[in-house]
Amino acid sequence: LLSKNRIQCRAIEVQTNHTFLKGDKFQLEDVIEAQQFDRDTLSAIFKVAREMETIEKNSHGSQLLNGYLMATLFYEPSTRTRLSFESAMKRLGGEVLTTENAREFSSAAKGETLEDSIRTVEGYSDIIVMRHFESGAARRAAMTANIPVINAGDGPGQHPTQALLDMYTIEREIGKLDGIKVGLVGDLANGRTVRSLAYLLAKYDNVKVYFVSPQVVKMKEDIKEYLTMKGVKWEESVDLKEVASECDVVYQTRIQKERFGERSDLYEEARGKYIIDGEVLGVMQEHAIVMHPLPRLDEIRVEVDGDPRAAYFRQAKNGLYIRMALLKLLLIGW
Amino acid sequence: LLSKNRIQCRAIEVQTNHTFLKGDKFQLEDVIEAQQFDRDTLSAIFKVAREMETIEKNSHGSQLLNGYLMATLFYEPSTRTRLSFESAMKRLGGEVLTTENAREFSSAAKGETLEDSIRTVEGYSDIIVMRHFESGAARRAAMTANIPVINAGDGPGQHPTQALLDMYTIEREIGKLDGIKVGLVGDLANGRTVRSLAYLLAKYDNVKVYFVSPQVVKMKEDIKEYLTMKGVKWEESVDLKEVASECDVVYQTRIQKERFGERSDLYEEARGKYIIDGEVLGVMQEHAIVMHPLPRLDEIRVEVDGDPRAAYFRQAKNGLYIRMALLKLLLIGW
Amino acid sequence: LLSKNRIQCRAIEVQTNHTFLKGDKFQLEDVIEAQQFDRDTLSAIFKVAREMETIEKNSHGSQLLNGYLMATLFYEPSTRTRLSFESAMKRLGGEVLTTENAREFSSAAKGETLEDSIRTVEGYSDIIVMRHFESGAARRAAMTANIPVINAGDGPGQHPTQALLDMYTIEREIGKLDGIKVGLVGDLANGRTVRSLAYLLAKYDNVKVYFVSPQVVKMKEDIKEYLTMKGVKWEESVDLKEVASECDVVYQTRIQKERFGERSDLYEEARGKYIIDGEVLGVMQEHAIVMHPLPRLDEIRVEVDGDPRAAYFRQAKNGLYIRMALLKLLLIGW
Repeated sequence: LLSKNRIQCRAIEVQTNHTFLKGDKFQLEDVIEAQQFDRDTLSAIFKVAREMETIEKNSHGSQLLNGYLMATLFYEPSTRTRLSFESAMKRLGGEVLTTENAREFSSAAKGETLEDSIRTVEGYSDIIVMRHFESGAARRAAMTANIPVINAGDGPGQHPTQALLDMYTIEREIGKLDGIKVGLVGDLANGRTVRSLAYLLAKYDNVKVYFVSPQVVKMKEDIKEYLTMKGVKWEESVDLKEVASECDVVYQTRIQKERFGERSDLYEEARGKYIIDGEVLGVMQEHAIVMHPLPRLDEIRVEVDGDPRAAYFRQAKNGLYIRMALLKLLLIGW
Repeated sequence: LLSKNRIQCRAIEVQTNHTFLKGDKFQLEDVIEAQQFDRDTLSAIFKVAREMETIEKNSHGSQLLNGYLMATLFYEPSTRTRLSFESAMKRLGGEVLTTENAREFSSAAKGETLEDSIRTVEGYSDIIVMRHFESGAARRAAMTANIPVINAGDGPGQHPTQALLDMYTIEREIGKLDGIKVGLVGDLANGRTVRSLAYLLAKYDNVKVYFVSPQVVKMKEDIKEYLTMKGVKWEESVDLKEVASECDVVYQTRIQKERFGERSDLYEEARGKYIIDGEVLGVMQEHAIVMHPLPRLDEIRVEVDGDPRAAYFRQAKNGLYIRMALLKLLLIGW
Repeated sequence: LLSKNRIQCRAIEVQTNHTFLKGDKFQLEDVIEAQQFDRDTLSAIFKVAREMETIEKNSHGSQLLNGYLMATLFYEPSTRTRLSFESAMKRLGGEVLTTENAREFSSAAKGETLEDSIRTVEGYSDIIVMRHFESGAARRAAMTANIPVINAGDGPGQHPTQALLDMYTIEREIGKLDGIKVGLVGDLANGRTVRSLAYLLAKYDNVKVYFVSPQVVKMKEDIKEYLTMKGVKWEESVDLKEVASECDVVYQTRIQKERFGERSDLYEEARGKYIIDGEVLGVMQEHAIVMHPLPRLDEIRVEVDGDPRAAYFRQAKNGLYIRMALLKLLLIGW
């Protein structure tokens, strides 16, 4: 519908006051990896996400993206992520083309390249949200497409909108990103979530990170070295309660059974080791929060859900606001 | 978008005159089972369904539910039911998020509880239409959700919108619900449709029910006892033509092959026993109708389709109006 | 929503000037096969497709089909075709009900006839776009439905919208259809695309067709006889470069591996025989084009993509305009 570097005049429903961006605007072209964002960009995106929250709560059917068409091109199913993006587009009055089985896309099955598929789909839509099973696929898609591409997860690679919504949740709940203490708990070896989060936390000043994980799924050296290089203090701990009492954010993750293969004994041992329950909650500070990327099994007990510090469902909802913000920024700019 | 107990002022496109409900309004919160509705509520819903019929036939694109988002969360596929709900929502200007494979929903597959899935999905939508393979799932979802839930079938349990559309069809075609004679034909043991219908018919006065079914799939005792308790006259018969000549409604059902396991001989015998054909039609009264919840195999012969008394495709269409009515009532009230 | 032979007054967004059709209008009811269109109709459809191109490029969200609902009833998946139709509908402001697994449609799986399924779905929508695995299914659907039906491919039978978009692309790129020279290359035995194209080319004057294909997948006799009967000159050639230097259009197709069964040696031989590469491109005329129905494997080398004569992605995009045109014509007329 539109070329990428278009200039647009259209009435935006919310009052905007981007003093920060006066004379310093940039055009967001694609969302490929968490590291592409600097502090100022993150701050600007979060501001738009707040506006989106207002739109979603107060207006009946925003028409901000009326006439725009988003293609959700999912090469592996991820219903939660897909519904979040599609809700974001529809909450802004945009429309959606969906395929959750792009891998069986008759064309891909017949041997068509990703590049050719993207060239076809970009003819039908204004923006592509792609999930793929191969690391680097999102970047290849973005290099081919003449319309914006959002990476909704590419294999073991990146899932940048998850990292953004995590950071947005911390800022929204704690009120700041500098000077925070974050405990990363659970499967720190395999979760791309906590790895991306570590990268983004390193952009802020005076952050302290605690790693609490079973021995078999410890945080890998590359992240620790990265944090050290960036001047972020970190330590490993085996005492979840002590860490919980110190932190602003306790970020729990699921131990991924599929990583343990036949060693279900190791899985069961790892899984039961660090659980957030009423007792852990009891030592946490009043203003602190518990986060989790979901789905959870029992690594956070249901008894925690009713506590105002249980932020994980608010966190999931923030994914909607972040995605609304990104769709707006990519399609019509600041 | 909205909390459950909201009050709304918005221009409704049809003139409404709910004298019945003056001073007696109620807020419909969820649709979980047929029995939740009393006569007055059924009557009020049917009145709204008639208004929906007018909207669907006369207007180009009602905007009654503009800005609302429905999530169809289907844990087992049911394309007919899903399309009917999605058409209802879109005919009223609303939007839809679809998942037909919620069971493989990466989260559910990973062990997430239904309650957690509902808490996530309610953040993306204004109403949830759920089909599930487990009896009682709809009630659990409704207890969790802060937005309305409609049960689109939960296993062997309930399928309340089917029961409502059946009753609406009878009232629409025959002109009354008190004093009617209804023949229930075919598989009366396994069909939840005829069981729900029996429950709802018992709410009306002076109703007579005939059961006509092969011996192996007879109506179960609990329903017979329920009807007796409610003062509904019923009898069993082996003479379809005699029953057909008496009834206002002949409600045929499909003999479900899957219930017979390896005994395909019993299935074939049961299946051929009570067929609606030109001959049966010939003894029916001028004002009477043939109904069927669809899909049908050959338990109603194709030769019947052209007769004005063949009401089953109109019945399917009435499902649209009932679902439009329920969506309107749950989202913006009377 | 509307009966088939309705007359409509509604503001159309583009200025139309159908002098050709003054006093000669016709009502397009269904799109079942390529042969149903004569030259004048094709010309008229292509004119509307050009208007659609203008709408898609210049307007933000046309509302031409606002309030209309299209059901994409796919009995076998074809994501590319489905997305193209759904984009066409949404670009015109219409809405879509989707099912890509109609074969497992619980009803079809239970033995419901196509006719009964159509009678149900037509109650939920204003137009049906159907893909089916059986030749002739589209015609059966059209005979049953009281709303328009578009054939999006029925087994080995027809795929008329592909044939229309191919002809539209030739006219759009070359500027004429009479007097053109077309080289059909690749799998001419199995591709329904080139067969349909041959039928439509025969409607024009002074057309010359070249067949260039491996021996095992030669064009069949019926098409050759048809062309001869219609006075179309044709010849077979083994020299792709000579043909390419003569033609206005080089229409390449994919050798379909699935047709060769266990004889992968024959497949590999056939597949490598006629490739469009820089060398072939080098002998083509300045105004000539390369077409392909996509997906392609390596029968057109990636090095060709950057040349302005590589028309295949423009051709895919033209599918959008043709489908927008057909939806408009079937739903609201000329």
